[in-house]
Parts: sequence; C-alpha cells; structure tokens
Amino acid sequence: MSTNNRKSAQLTSKEATPNRKPKEISSDGSFKRQRNRFTTPFGNGSDELPVEAGRYRLLWSAACPWAHRSVIVRKVLGLEDAISLGEASPIRPRISRVDWEFSLDEHGVDPVLGIQYMSEIYLKTDPEYSGRPTVPVMVDVKKGVAVNNDYFKLTNYLETAWAPFHKEGAPDLYPEELRSEIDILNDTIFHDVNNGVYKCGFAQSQDSYEEAFENLFARLDELEVRLSKKRFLFGDFITDSDVRLYSTLVRFDVAYYNGFNTNRNLIREFPNLWGYLRDLYQTPGFGDTTNFDAIKRHYHLSITINPDKNEVKILPKGPELAVFNSPHGREKLSETDDKFKINRKN
Amino acid sequence: MSTNNRKSAQLTSKEATPNRKPKEISSDGSFKRQRNRFTTPFGNGSDELPVEAGRYRLLWSAACPWAHRSVIVRKVLGLEDAISLGEASPIRPRISRVDWEFSLDEHGVDPVLGIQYMSEIYLKTDPEYSGRPTVPVMVDVKKGVAVNNDYFKLTNYLETAWAPFHKEGAPDLYPEELRSEIDILNDTIFHDVNNGVYKCGFAQSQDSYEEAFENLFARLDELEVRLSKKRFLFGDFITDSDVRLYSTLVRFDVAYYNGFNTNRNLIREFPNLWGYLRDLYQTPGFGDTTNFDAIKRHYHLSITINPDKNEVKILPKGPELAVFNSPHGREKLSETDDKFKINRKN
Repeated sequence: MSTNNRKSAQLTSKEATPNRKPKEISSDGSFKRQRNRFTTPFGNGSDELPVEAGRYRLLWSAACPWAHRSVIVRKVLGLEDAISLGEASPIRPRISRVDWEFSLDEHGVDPVLGIQYMSEIYLKTDPEYSGRPTVPVMVDVKKGVAVNNDYFKLTNYLETAWAPFHKEGAPDLYPEELRSEIDILNDTIFHDVNNGVYKCGFAQSQDSYEEAFENLFARLDELEVRLSKKRFLFGDFITDSDVRLYSTLVRFDVAYYNGFNTNRNLIREFPNLWGYLRDLYQTPGFGDTTNFDAIKRHYHLSITINPDKNEVKILPKGPELAVFNSPHGREKLSETDDKFKINRKN
Repeated sequence: MSTNNRKSAQLTSKEATPNRKPKEISSDGSFKRQRNRFTTPFGNGSDELPVEAGRYRLLWSAACPWAHRSVIVRKVLGLEDAISLGEASPIRPRISRVDWEFSLDEHGVDPVLGIQYMSEIYLKTDPEYSGRPTVPVMVDVKKGVAVNNDYFKLTNYLETAWAPFHKEGAPDLYPEELRSEIDILNDTIFHDVNNGVYKCGFAQSQDSYEEAFENLFARLDELEVRLSKKRFLFGDFITDSDVRLYSTLVRFDVAYYNGFNTNRNLIREFPNLWGYLRDLYQTPGFGDTTNFDAIKRHYHLSITINPDKNEVKILPKGPELAVFNSPHGREKLSETDDKFKINRKN
C-alpha cells in the first residue's frame, strides 16, 4: 500500500472528529459506547474463525484498557508465539482524534501489516466503516483483514478456543464450573466499572455524569467488601474477571480520578481493592504489560471526546508509582501459594 | 450609577480575556502573579489609611483563597461590625472571565456600593486600570473608591492597626515576639504553597509545571514533619501563618488536586496536615467561612486562564466532605485547651 493510498484510505478529520454533539453521546448527554463491528467467534465451526498459530496479529495500544485485557491473557496463557502483537502509540494522530497511529514503529508503520493508522485495516475490511477504529482488533494476516474486534469476548476466546496453543501448565482463567458466574460478574463490572469510568468522563450532562459516578462507587464499595474475604474475585485463583477489573483499577489513580472526574476516592484509599490491585500488578502478565507512561500520556494529553486543539496540555506528574510494588499482604487470604488454577486440559 | 454606565465602565471582553499568551504568563510558560495596585497601609500616619469603624467594605468571593484569609481573620478578631462584607459570585461573568460579579445579591448589585462587577470599583478608582480586578479589596465607602487590595498584608493590618476594634478577648494572631519568624514562614508558604498551586495549575509549559510541583510537595513534606510535633505552625496557638496555610489546604483535595494537577498526594493522605486541617476547619472562623460549593464551582466550572468557552463543564461530585468534621486527635499535641493566644492589648 503506497503512502498516498494510505492517506486516502484514512478516515478524514471531518468524518472522524466528533462535532459539537459527538457520535456516541445520547440526547440526555450520557455516553453510549459504539457496538463492535467484527464479532465472528474463534472456534472449530464452519462459520467460526479458525484457530491457527501464526495466522493472526493482535493490534493494541498500551493506553487502552479494553486492549490491555487481551494482552494480559495472551501473556498469562503463553500465546505470544501463536499470536503476534502490534502496538499503536497512546497519542492519537493529529489528523484524526479517534484513530490510532503506529508511530512507535520504525518508519511509522506496523512492520507486519504495513499500515500507518488503525483505520486503514478497518476501511480495507469494510470500506463503509464509519465508527471509531478501536483496539483490540485481531487481524488475519493471511487475508490482511480485521476479523474480530470484540473486546468483550476476545479474552474468553483466548481462554477456550485457543487452548490448544496454551503453554504447558497454563492457568485456567475461565473454569467451566464458574463460567456462568464469571459472565454475570463480568457484565456488572463492564457496565459499572470498565465502561462506568468512561460514562463519567465522557458525560455531556451533569445528571448523566452523577448517575455514572454513583453506580461506579456503589460497585467499588461492593467489590471492596467482596475482596475483604477473598484474595481474588472468585477465591484463591485469578480468573478472567480479575483481568477485567485490573485493567480499570490500574488506570484509576493515574488517569480516571483526575481526567474522568471519578474523584470520590482513589483506589489506594480502598484497603482491599488497593492490596488486590498490587497483588495482581506484581503477577507476571499484569504489571509487566502495564505502561503507566502510555496511560498517563493518553488520558491527559490525547483524548477522543471534546478535544480542545489550542489548549496547552500539561502531563500531571503524580501520583507516585513505586507504591505499586509495595507489599500487599494478600497472601493471608489464600489457602495456596499459587495464584493460578492450572488448566486441566494440559 | 446607571446600568449603562456600569456596562461601559466594565473591562471589555477583549481587554480582559487572556489571548493565546495570557498576561500573567512568562516567556518560559510559568505563571507570574500580577502586583497589587492599591497598597497604602492602614495606620495612624498621615500617609496611611485611617482606621475607622463603618468606613470600609471588604469585597471577597468565597472561592478565592486570598480573600478567604482576610474573612477568617475578620471573623476570628470580631471585626464584623467594624468592616462590612460584600460577596461576589464564585462564577466569573460571561462577559469577562477575569472579573467578579455580584450576582448573589438582589438585583445583581452590591447593596452598599451599587456595583454589578468588581471591575467597576477598580476603574472608578483608576480609569487606567488594566489588570485583573482582584479580591480581597477594601473599599472606602465614604469616597466610593478602592483603597487596599494587598492580599499579602491585609490580614496583618487587621491584626495590628485594627486592634482598637477587636472584640473583647480577641486572640493575638500576630504576636510581636514571633513576627519576624511568621513573616519568613509566610513568605515561604506564599511562594511554594499558596501561589505554588497556581503555578502548577496555570503553567503553560511542562518544565515550569514540574518545578512548581516539586517545590509544592517538598514544602508540604516539610510542613508535615513540622506539624508532627506542633499542633499549629508556631506551637499551641493559631497564628496568621495558620490562616494562610489553611486557605490553600482546605481547597486542595476539592479543587487543586484535580483542577491544577497537584496530584502527588491528597492532603487527606498526609496524617499530620490532614489532622491539622480538620482541627482548623472545626475552629470558629475557619470552617464556617469555608464554602465548598463555591470553591468547587469556581475551580471546576469557571477559571481565569485558558477558558474553553464551548466545552461542556461537569462539576466533579467528589470528594466526600463530611470527613472534614471527623475527630482529628490533635489536642494531644497541645499543652492547653485553648487554640488561641489571647491578645494582651485587650
């Protein structure tokens, strides 16, 4: 794809930049996240995406909590050799505040797909695509098209359909006997916490903001109690739900509290949530995929909704990050030294 | 003064609204606060302002920390009958983002001075005045002109020159034997804390912001240690320095941490500063002159530098305020039950 094609294929500023009334804002001023465009599941069925090592590339940005959860699961399950990873910059491109740009790569293009902007792969797959080009997105490298951007279900596909490629001794993050409970909790965490912080931050009316704020902190208060007796959400072992809660909690004090007005309390003021967050942060796959610098620069210097192009942007210096490595004392809540339930399929 | 005169006397939007390079920003992007215009001291000298009950009106806004300190001292010393008080709204007028408006009053004018905007009294006193019309300002009601807007020294005048009108048993906030030490500490608190938060919030370059941030928290760390052994900054009794530190600390968690990027720590995370702040808050003259609603609305919905007129403004719901009334346990640091050293002049 030539540079010229690349530019013409990119969403234009006019199409992509939100107007006074951004696309994902309802008439009452509340934030309504767009639906996912590519939702074909991975599996063995004829209408499913074949599970094949080396065939797909996962595109993410370290800033994005929705993409982060897939990258955590990919690492915890040892899928790094089976699924390659392409990383976009946390800073939105100047030409479109809703796109993602591969400016971290040499020559500013993803080395495998050869694209400069995330929108290129969306438009190549669907020339009519007019939504935000989101991460995570799984790209079929063979066909050069996006095949799945279902951030809600992607971790579950990695945990189940992708089991043949899990590393030896990989944990079972989505145990069959807990799946219905995990699904219910994931749904709650999604509405009130994962997307809840966005509903606070992107609200365009005081009422919709306050409603999201109340729901968010009511849920955090509930989780704080739950985590007073359990080391992780479902007991001694980390599950898919913990990955989802982590990806929001780890961004809370460094980005949402200030940037999204979620300022009743910092996570480090909840004794159990704070210990739980550090426990996960100090677990391989979690802290080592967490890029605070990218998170801070994205949320404070580059944000999708309501950009003010002329404003001088200052990157807040706080909070202190070394505390994420401080002792958490959560081991006492657990009956085992192992945080992971080993996948019996291996 | 007719409504027409009032409008023409007001600073126009063009004069008063900061351009790309606001007036009080240096070439390195740092914030340099304007000098005070009216600085004649109160006293008995021929070139001083005569101290006279009923002659002056103190104009303030509950949002402003510089004005708040004068209002605290006025109340603590019992000067309410001697000096009347006029209050401007915490929300800047639409017509000029640097002015203050008497929209809390009936008919939208100060009942004594008959002015709608703060700028009117500045321009009536000095038709060439082109700075921000600031509070606090003492107005000579007899002459209808501003006579002193020296926020730095005004509390000291109230504490000394105004002693003849102090209430019986008024405390000595500025004891002679401590004045040189108080002056030195006040200067430090001014540069690093009182004005330090503004240097963080109004910085137009990353470097100048980070320098102000470091100085602010280095000083707060130092004060945290100082207040581990002393109930107040100079021991058992409240002094002028405590008033000055209070007016910034009480705004910190509700406004500066978010709005001015002073986000290393909340004040409620410093055990001694937080106990000290609540101790003062629970003292007559302090908490009862603190209007959190005005503070939050000013800093989050209406701010001087870099206004974005089209942005939908959301008022952050947090943090919780009831905790300001929680027990502080600071009594144990004091040898007396009385927080005030009684003025021996009475």
